[in-house]
Amino acid sequence: MGKDLALPFDLDIAEKLLNEFGSPLYVYDEQGIRETAQDLHEAFSWAKGYKNYFAVKATPTPGILKILVDAGMGLDCSTRSELLMAQKMGLAGTDIFYTSNNTPLEDFELAIDLGATINIDDLTQFPVFLKALNGRRIERVAARYNPGGLKTGNAIIGEPTEAKYGMGIDSLVQTFKLLNEQQITEFGLHTMVVSNELQSDYFVDTASLLFDAMEEVERRAGVGFSFVNLGGGLGHNYKTDEDPIDIQKVADGVKRVIKERKKKISVCTENGRYVTAQHGYLLTRVRYVMHKYKTYLGVDASMQNLMRPGMYGAYHHVTVLGKEKKNHTNTYDIVGALCENNDKFAISRELPEAIEGDILAIHDTGAHGHAMGFNYNGLLRSAEVILSPNGKARLVRRAETVEDYFRTIIW
Amino acid sequence: MGKDLALPFDLDIAEKLLNEFGSPLYVYDEQGIRETAQDLHEAFSWAKGYKNYFAVKATPTPGILKILVDAGMGLDCSTRSELLMAQKMGLAGTDIFYTSNNTPLEDFELAIDLGATINIDDLTQFPVFLKALNGRRIERVAARYNPGGLKTGNAIIGEPTEAKYGMGIDSLVQTFKLLNEQQITEFGLHTMVVSNELQSDYFVDTASLLFDAMEEVERRAGVGFSFVNLGGGLGHNYKTDEDPIDIQKVADGVKRVIKERKKKISVCTENGRYVTAQHGYLLTRVRYVMHKYKTYLGVDASMQNLMRPGMYGAYHHVTVLGKEKKNHTNTYDIVGALCENNDKFAISRELPEAIEGDILAIHDTGAHGHAMGFNYNGLLRSAEVILSPNGKARLVRRAETVEDYFRTIIW
Repeated sequence: MGKDLALPFDLDIAEKLLNEFGSPLYVYDEQGIRETAQDLHEAFSWAKGYKNYFAVKATPTPGILKILVDAGMGLDCSTRSELLMAQKMGLAGTDIFYTSNNTPLEDFELAIDLGATINIDDLTQFPVFLKALNGRRIERVAARYNPGGLKTGNAIIGEPTEAKYGMGIDSLVQTFKLLNEQQITEFGLHTMVVSNELQSDYFVDTASLLFDAMEEVERRAGVGFSFVNLGGGLGHNYKTDEDPIDIQKVADGVKRVIKERKKKISVCTENGRYVTAQHGYLLTRVRYVMHKYKTYLGVDASMQNLMRPGMYGAYHHVTVLGKEKKNHTNTYDIVGALCENNDKFAISRELPEAIEGDILAIHDTGAHGHAMGFNYNGLLRSAEVILSPNGKARLVRRAETVEDYFRTIIW
Repeated sequence: MGKDLALPFDLDIAEKLLNEFGSPLYVYDEQGIRETAQDLHEAFSWAKGYKNYFAVKATPTPGILKILVDAGMGLDCSTRSELLMAQKMGLAGTDIFYTSNNTPLEDFELAIDLGATINIDDLTQFPVFLKALNGRRIERVAARYNPGGLKTGNAIIGEPTEAKYGMGIDSLVQTFKLLNEQQITEFGLHTMVVSNELQSDYFVDTASLLFDAMEEVERRAGVGFSFVNLGGGLGHNYKTDEDPIDIQKVADGVKRVIKERKKKISVCTENGRYVTAQHGYLLTRVRYVMHKYKTYLGVDASMQNLMRPGMYGAYHHVTVLGKEKKNHTNTYDIVGALCENNDKFAISRELPEAIEGDILAIHDTGAHGHAMGFNYNGLLRSAEVILSPNGKARLVRRAETVEDYFRTIIW
């Protein structure tokens, strides 16, 4: 029950938050986010100009992103909406990395307007990129490497040979030959072949592969690389019996690879989940305790608030607030109100006895949580608040209303 | 390639639609919807007061719902938003069936205000229902039966014993005893244990089970039932090698069961998918043809427009418009722009050779299509139009804008 002890709030605070902001509610722990950001930066402090571009898709809430930018991060944007969010936050230039795929012309244009570092996903994007460039000069550009059969993916992202992302060596060579005609001064190489991975060796091996590719592309395309983007994929230990990834070991391994190859190169990453997942909590109140063929805790959150258990069968730890020290004597399915049978936050979970009105904290929802919510069944997404170290909470996203849900309808 | 021939539009019309309303675009075939509605009504025309309550969740767009109401259907609402939609459409009373689960007090209150037929999901809901009733008298109420181990579910909805919906016999008896103290004049029993099922026998067997339960509850609770809701679950043959469900056989089978038991009872159903799935199409334009380790058609729709392939691995037939008569010589993965590797509409699909700018029609998206979309990666949901028998199209939902996406943010 180690995780139960790590909560940055207790039942009283949770009650106050739900009374003030409504239930269900996303609560983010500002201090925790800052500490993890610091850990990441310290681990890579040896790397010249190191920057983590936080993957906006994980937690696309400006209130959270501001904390990360304040902590020294840039933003990894994958779409036009995310670029516009970065722009509205006043960001530009090397604060934005634009890693997209299947990219429309107008999105390249916006990325270039913003001075973002564009990461080209495929050779076929080059003419579109060139059209968007429209004679303008840009300083930095990267392209995305897919190692194909050289690397095994993990269960989440699948095999690289089955992935829609990135290019093999031959396409990279062609892409950089073409880019080299554009008076670009800084070239970079990017890869990302895993998601939510906890094995540190995996990232070190991937860095090795990326440097192999880099050397081959440099030789064959006649370009020199000045930066490398190791992508995201640093995992979070959702399950209580998993060990957290050893970030120092990852950073030390990458350092060793770079040293062995005598590379003078700046390093960036684009981790989202690692930074915020563990610092977000979905608070939800028990509406019904139902004894059917199994016993169900019907809560006031549903799949629109958190898709990961329903979509991926993902595990999220759950605490019954105020009962942290009680024995786990009962077995529950924790369910929402969606008319869809995968609307379950937990299946056959052992917990202390819960009653109507109890507040559950669903852990590790700080990344790919609120962001993935839908409006199926007309259900509405909740508000988000940030809990400050001083104990105060500030609203960074209001809850949706039915007027929002009706907004696009032509009656 | 039978399905390719069934399109209610050709390339020229599709081009015009995308030019006028933008791409991607949902297109619904009004005439097809009316014909299927008529087929359903005719099959059950023997049943006294038969009504299909269309499952709003399948296609929660008032423009579509109006066609169905006009064709004689009611609406099956599962949440507050859906009730409010029905209310805004001017519906009330027996035009609304409220089948919810894990239901909040205020939603029961609204359903009672509207005169909807409430379907009680669990014994624990009774006190909440009673509180919502607040001394008012209502005429009709139903409760939901879960047959548990007596019935095997199908792959989509899972086993009844693992389902969060409905009650066993003992809870039903208790519920109706309590309801019987409330001066309610019409009692009904409901069940739904499958989703997207194509075997007609399944529904007939389920009707038998429901009547068994009904007789036991009548005997033990001392109530008489005047209506039965056989739920939804009539499937659609998404795959080209599947036969459509024989609706006449389902209706005849239910008729036989009722006749054998000498029941005088009115029948209703709550099918959504069966009515609209085959009459909706997602039009999307090819943005890139990418040769990676596999060959990809990158289209301008993504998972936010259609979740079923990514979430369930569901099959949707695809036509390259204007190339209906060409041989299927190429093998493609059809992918969107989401930074998520399950953002694929089809995997290793054989199609005629496609080029940039081609329009694809993704078939059978008229139910649980647009409705399930999310905004992950800041991607936006498309517009919806209804194609009338006179060849004209009318907008029934506009496309989302980035302003919509930003609307709940506190900057």
